[in-house]
Amino acid sequence: MLSIDLPAAFGFMPNVVAQLGTFEIPQGLNLENILVYSPLQHDLISHLLTLGVGAMAVGFVYFLTTKRQSAPAYQPSSVLSAIVMVSAFLILFRQLQGWQSAFAFDGEVWRLTDSTFSNGYRYLNWSIDVPCLLTQMLFVVNVTPAKFRKTRTRFVASGLLMIYTGYIGQYFELTSIPWFMLWGFISTIFYVYILYLVGNLIFRSREGLPRPAYNTMGTIWWVILISWTLYPLAYLVPLGWQFFPEWGGWAGVTRQFLFTVADIFSKVIYGVLLTSAAQACSVEAGY
Amino acid sequence: MLSIDLPAAFGFMPNVVAQLGTFEIPQGLNLENILVYSPLQHDLISHLLTLGVGAMAVGFVYFLTTKRQSAPAYQPSSVLSAIVMVSAFLILFRQLQGWQSAFAFDGEVWRLTDSTFSNGYRYLNWSIDVPCLLTQMLFVVNVTPAKFRKTRTRFVASGLLMIYTGYIGQYFELTSIPWFMLWGFISTIFYVYILYLVGNLIFRSREGLPRPAYNTMGTIWWVILISWTLYPLAYLVPLGWQFFPEWGGWAGVTRQFLFTVADIFSKVIYGVLLTSAAQACSVEAGY
Amino acid sequence: MLSIDLPAAFGFMPNVVAQLGTFEIPQGLNLENILVYSPLQHDLISHLLTLGVGAMAVGFVYFLTTKRQSAPAYQPSSVLSAIVMVSAFLILFRQLQGWQSAFAFDGEVWRLTDSTFSNGYRYLNWSIDVPCLLTQMLFVVNVTPAKFRKTRTRFVASGLLMIYTGYIGQYFELTSIPWFMLWGFISTIFYVYILYLVGNLIFRSREGLPRPAYNTMGTIWWVILISWTLYPLAYLVPLGWQFFPEWGGWAGVTRQFLFTVADIFSKVIYGVLLTSAAQACSVEAGY
Amino acid sequence: MLSIDLPAAFGFMPNVVAQLGTFEIPQGLNLENILVYSPLQHDLISHLLTLGVGAMAVGFVYFLTTKRQSAPAYQPSSVLSAIVMVSAFLILFRQLQGWQSAFAFDGEVWRLTDSTFSNGYRYLNWSIDVPCLLTQMLFVVNVTPAKFRKTRTRFVASGLLMIYTGYIGQYFELTSIPWFMLWGFISTIFYVYILYLVGNLIFRSREGLPRPAYNTMGTIWWVILISWTLYPLAYLVPLGWQFFPEWGGWAGVTRQFLFTVADIFSKVIYGVLLTSAAQACSVEAGY
Amino acid sequence: MLSIDLPAAFGFMPNVVAQLGTFEIPQGLNLENILVYSPLQHDLISHLLTLGVGAMAVGFVYFLTTKRQSAPAYQPSSVLSAIVMVSAFLILFRQLQGWQSAFAFDGEVWRLTDSTFSNGYRYLNWSIDVPCLLTQMLFVVNVTPAKFRKTRTRFVASGLLMIYTGYIGQYFELTSIPWFMLWGFISTIFYVYILYLVGNLIFRSREGLPRPAYNTMGTIWWVILISWTLYPLAYLVPLGWQFFPEWGGWAGVTRQFLFTVADIFSKVIYGVLLTSAAQACSVEAGY
Ligand SMILES: CC1=C(/C=C/C(C)=C/C=C/C(C)=C/C=O)C(C)(C)CCC1
Ligand SMILES: CC1=C(/C=C/C(C)=C/C=C/C(C)=C/C=O)C(C)(C)CCC1
Ligand SMILES: CC1=C(/C=C/C(C)=C/C=C/C(C)=C/C=O)C(C)(C)CCC1
Ligand SMILES: CC1=C(/C=C/C(C)=C/C=C/C(C)=C/C=O)C(C)(C)CCC1
Ligand SMILES: CC1=C(/C=C/C(C)=C/C=C/C(C)=C/C=O)C(C)(C)CCC1
Ligand code: NA
Ligand code: NA
Ligand code: NA
Ligand code: NA
Ligand code: NA
Ligand code: NA
Ligand code: NA
Ligand code: NA
Ligand code: NA
Ligand code: NA
Repeated sequence: MLSIDLPAAFGFMPNVVAQLGTFEIPQGLNLENILVYSPLQHDLISHLLTLGVGAMAVGFVYFLTTKRQSAPAYQPSSVLSAIVMVSAFLILFRQLQGWQSAFAFDGEVWRLTDSTFSNGYRYLNWSIDVPCLLTQMLFVVNVTPAKFRKTRTRFVASGLLMIYTGYIGQYFELTSIPWFMLWGFISTIFYVYILYLVGNLIFRSREGLPRPAYNTMGTIWWVILISWTLYPLAYLVPLGWQFFPEWGGWAGVTRQFLFTVADIFSKVIYGVLLTSAAQACSVEAGY
Repeated sequence: MLSIDLPAAFGFMPNVVAQLGTFEIPQGLNLENILVYSPLQHDLISHLLTLGVGAMAVGFVYFLTTKRQSAPAYQPSSVLSAIVMVSAFLILFRQLQGWQSAFAFDGEVWRLTDSTFSNGYRYLNWSIDVPCLLTQMLFVVNVTPAKFRKTRTRFVASGLLMIYTGYIGQYFELTSIPWFMLWGFISTIFYVYILYLVGNLIFRSREGLPRPAYNTMGTIWWVILISWTLYPLAYLVPLGWQFFPEWGGWAGVTRQFLFTVADIFSKVIYGVLLTSAAQACSVEAGY
Repeated sequence: MLSIDLPAAFGFMPNVVAQLGTFEIPQGLNLENILVYSPLQHDLISHLLTLGVGAMAVGFVYFLTTKRQSAPAYQPSSVLSAIVMVSAFLILFRQLQGWQSAFAFDGEVWRLTDSTFSNGYRYLNWSIDVPCLLTQMLFVVNVTPAKFRKTRTRFVASGLLMIYTGYIGQYFELTSIPWFMLWGFISTIFYVYILYLVGNLIFRSREGLPRPAYNTMGTIWWVILISWTLYPLAYLVPLGWQFFPEWGGWAGVTRQFLFTVADIFSKVIYGVLLTSAAQACSVEAGY
Repeated sequence: MLSIDLPAAFGFMPNVVAQLGTFEIPQGLNLENILVYSPLQHDLISHLLTLGVGAMAVGFVYFLTTKRQSAPAYQPSSVLSAIVMVSAFLILFRQLQGWQSAFAFDGEVWRLTDSTFSNGYRYLNWSIDVPCLLTQMLFVVNVTPAKFRKTRTRFVASGLLMIYTGYIGQYFELTSIPWFMLWGFISTIFYVYILYLVGNLIFRSREGLPRPAYNTMGTIWWVILISWTLYPLAYLVPLGWQFFPEWGGWAGVTRQFLFTVADIFSKVIYGVLLTSAAQACSVEAGY
Repeated sequence: MLSIDLPAAFGFMPNVVAQLGTFEIPQGLNLENILVYSPLQHDLISHLLTLGVGAMAVGFVYFLTTKRQSAPAYQPSSVLSAIVMVSAFLILFRQLQGWQSAFAFDGEVWRLTDSTFSNGYRYLNWSIDVPCLLTQMLFVVNVTPAKFRKTRTRFVASGLLMIYTGYIGQYFELTSIPWFMLWGFISTIFYVYILYLVGNLIFRSREGLPRPAYNTMGTIWWVILISWTLYPLAYLVPLGWQFFPEWGGWAGVTRQFLFTVADIFSKVIYGVLLTSAAQACSVEAGY
């Protein structure tokens, strides 16, 4: 267990240290656990997580019931979306339960109980979702089998490396800014590479697609670009909080808000768009 | 955390203040949490929420098993109803659990524990349901693809604006009547616009429909008009309670009663009526 | 909250009053909560509720997997049975959970905790089940579409009135015998009317049916008559207990026993019989 | 509540009485509750119950996915197995939960909390499973419709009588050996009669079956004979414990071990064997 | 309950004894329970178990939705994978719940509550999974029915013996190294025999397979060899900890890490590879 080394690392933020007093932050704790929340803040997070859970359940029903409306060649895209829904439903349900058992209301604010809240569940879970989401696209655009395999391998490898390096980094979010930033930086390299791969794929391989699918692929690019970028922003929230500790419980709200919006766009909306592109291709192919 | 500013805002209701004494209501708490409940009142709410949960489960089975009885063009209506059922089932289950863990029986009345009850889950969840419910109608009435897309966009946009403004407003229900009323008013503007869109759609586009479907669409208009209006009434309950604080736990009962009746009519009954209209159209179309 | 007014109402039962001492029964509490239970009694109720839960789950699988064995015209009967199973499964699961959290074992007997047990869940849930169960029959017997609609309306209306008046009445079971009896009486009027409708329907409309279905409809009459009558008997248990307070925990056992037997016969056995009648009709119709 | 009357009944076992001291065992408690468990013993039971839960879930998937591999005449056997799986899954899950909430670890041993463990759930649940398991066989062997109906009635009647008499008996396992033995004896009479019916059925009606099915029916006989006999052995555990109280927590382990092995063989293995016999018959019938 | 006899057995490790002080370890407790965990360590284990749960859920959807893409002869492989997913999902969910209720956070570290964590659930569950996983392979490679049956019998028998001897051994992991090592050794004999059988099967029977399936079978061999070997490594963790007690909570993390990686590779990845081999064979067979 490390004492909080922020001042040593950056030489500023005396107010953080003041607020925390002599309290030593044990290694691995997430920011959410050292904050207190007004009912407004606490409920907002509960509502957001519950919205996420509902969105994934709803997405699951949608992807399963519309699978048959695409030609067989495109159906793996629906299956992969359904898989992502199952996985994200479980993880968000876990986050919600964790949130509810980690804090208790004392009539004024919500304070930590003998349980904690952790964002790390999400990271390990992305090891399932990110490979699925990226691979999924390959079933809709026009690629040769060889390119399919090659791109898939790159997607999976760089996706996992991005996630695992970020996962390590987030353990330092309260106890060591340098390590936190270093791992975040390494993760970002893989992230940029993935964006490069995706952009390349979309803008090169959508050529053969029918008009509506062609356009949809363009929208998908923006959906990915924006929604994926919310994850590193959520990662950075503890840094922002150390600059503005008066941010208080709103820091927690911001992070869960970013995660929820990112989850809904990068998984559900993305999947719906890809399905609609697949349907356009199926119509064109006379299905 | 704000102290309760009602007297400042309206200059009346000394009895509320008296009852609350020096207790400061923390921002964001819902009315339900500052009331105590007789067993009769507490159980009534439990029963109502459980009825809602059951109705959604039952609706889910109904919409899935009857989907095939409509022609393919109308089946998205059943899928959307099924989706709404899943989403509402989850949210009502959450409300029920929240209700049960937020209060404990002391041999006389039920009092708040170290957990709270929140209505806000519902609002965020409506962001899923309202777009689905409104879009659903478009699959049954006679509209051109262009009108379909245009109306859908308006439905989704005004629906989300109605919900999110109301969501903000409900956080002020105990701490600031002016803000509470202002956001409620803005929300109502969008609500009225939605009703206008719906009325227009129903009474213009049902023309081509076979007789029974034509009539059912008329019934649907009234179901929507009445059941949707129960939601703003539920929103207003804390205002009523401040005029008649002796209303006590019955205020909580009234709100959950309004929500439950509204949920059953605007989701289940509405979906059943739309399905029956779709079946009438399918028969006419020789399916 | 009312003090117990039984002596005022009837002028007898001093022993009840003696047992309760100065304890004031809060309005709306069910009899089960003011009793203590030996392990034998407590477990019996747990077992019965669990049996009910299992029976509904099992029925659900049965009705879904045998649906296709009836001709399409009869399949709505299976769907309605499946719906009833889902609804009853949820409610009985809730009863079981409520039972388990409402009492704790002190090494000798089970005593009330800071939670309570309530039968009222059942009533509100019957608003789903009773209309389904009655309507279901109309798909199997021989009725004209006009008679179908007319009878269905009567079934639903009188069913709901029977339930809601009984629901009001049960809230008085410990605090006011006169109101308890009055509402029970009104409920019984609707009950008798439903029996009249059912008898009429069965004995008039089974004429056209093939032999085995004709006979089964006769059995169904008796199953309904007897099993439905167990519900008002369960309703009356608190009255019996006031005459024989030494009945103690067995009063609770009796009520849950009556409910469970009634549930299994009026929902599962009834549905199985109706399915077998429908299959006989399907065979006759050459399906 | 009775004080323990064992010495009065048999005039021996002073050591039991010594161990229990002045503690009066309340009527209806199962043996498991008056024992303490080492971590080894406690975990063994948890593992066994969890194994049972897993076996039933796995069986459910198996019977549903292999149903179509038998000719339609044999498919009811798969449906009945699936039903038994659902029912047993629920009951074993309940046992597991009950086990986990009934005891707490004090750093040395597991001791009773304010909840208890009960085996009686199983008995009431057998009222669903035993009729299904016995009836199931009739769909595979060669019987006339008349014999089918007659045997089924006998199976159901004697099965229920065996179970309910045993259920009564087990309530006396700690408080009255004579009653315990009497009801156990009556139950055994029905058990022997069932075995007679089953043996008769198998060895007379397997004649027409193809070779592999013929052999499998023989195996089934032994599976039933042995696995069913484990249930009365589990019933007798408390008697054994009174002779050897130093058996301690191992008595509880033994009972749950017997129940789990019996459940897996009499439900899952039995169902798999019957399915394989049905498949052999289907192949022979050219399906 | 045994006092810890390690020094007696090996004559070393005074530091372990020192750390444990006079504390007597009750028989059957797993290593995880006598350690304390930093938030980092505790969360890592929670994340890993949750990842496992998600992977099994996702695998279940995958195997069910892709079943039809193999020729009927290979479909039992998909069914068996689905069965393994169900079983492993339940067990890992149990592990996760057990983990969460066994420890509480005191602001610094997580300490044992009045519940415990146990790895033994896994072993009993392997009695379901190992036979399924091994048998599954036989549906894909080229074997005669006779060889199929013979190999299956050997697989099941040696699999169960490996598991049950290991299960016994793990109960001694804290209280008797000699017994722990002895049972582990016996288990390893069966393990080596299974590896021999598997290697033999793969390298002899893949001859007839089409090229891609032939190659995949080679990969499968390595996946099995490596992932299965992680289980005995996890078994040995308590031994390692006794040499390096300063390993502390990381010993627990290592064990759950090994189990999770092993579970994902030996069940999900293995199943996916086998499915792809089956699809290659199906294509070759003109399906
Ligand atoms: C760049 C970066 C990150 C990027 C994360 C991303 C891009 C996650 C995407 C997740 C998705 C799409 C999940 C879907 O289920 C981390 C790891 C937060 C660490 C900090 C730097
Ligand atoms: C006018 C108004 C409101 C309207 C809410 C409505 C009309 C909700 C409809 C919800 C539905 C139909 C949900 C279905 O799942 C609010 C937001 C309460 C805020 C106050 C003003
Ligand atoms: C006469 C009478 C009653 C009748 C209840 C009945 C007949 C309920 C039937 C319920 C069914 C069939 C449920 C199926 O799910 C009440 C309301 C207890 C109140 C007292 C008088
Ligand atoms: C003889 C005997 C008994 C027999 C029980 C049996 C034979 C139970 C079989 C259960 C099955 C097969 C369940 C399947 O789900 C009892 C009741 C323990 C009481 C003591 C005497
Ligand atoms: C050699 C050995 C073991 C081997 C275990 C194995 C090989 C388990 C495989 C499990 C699988 C594949 C499960 C899939 O669900 C034990 C029992 C740990 C005990 C110590 C010695
Ligand atoms: Na809490
Ligand atoms: Na996520
Ligand atoms: Na409570
Ligand atoms: Na709602
Ligand atoms: Na309890
Ligand atoms: Na009921
Ligand atoms: Na416990
Ligand atoms: Na059982
Ligand atoms: Na905990
Ligand atoms: Na495992």
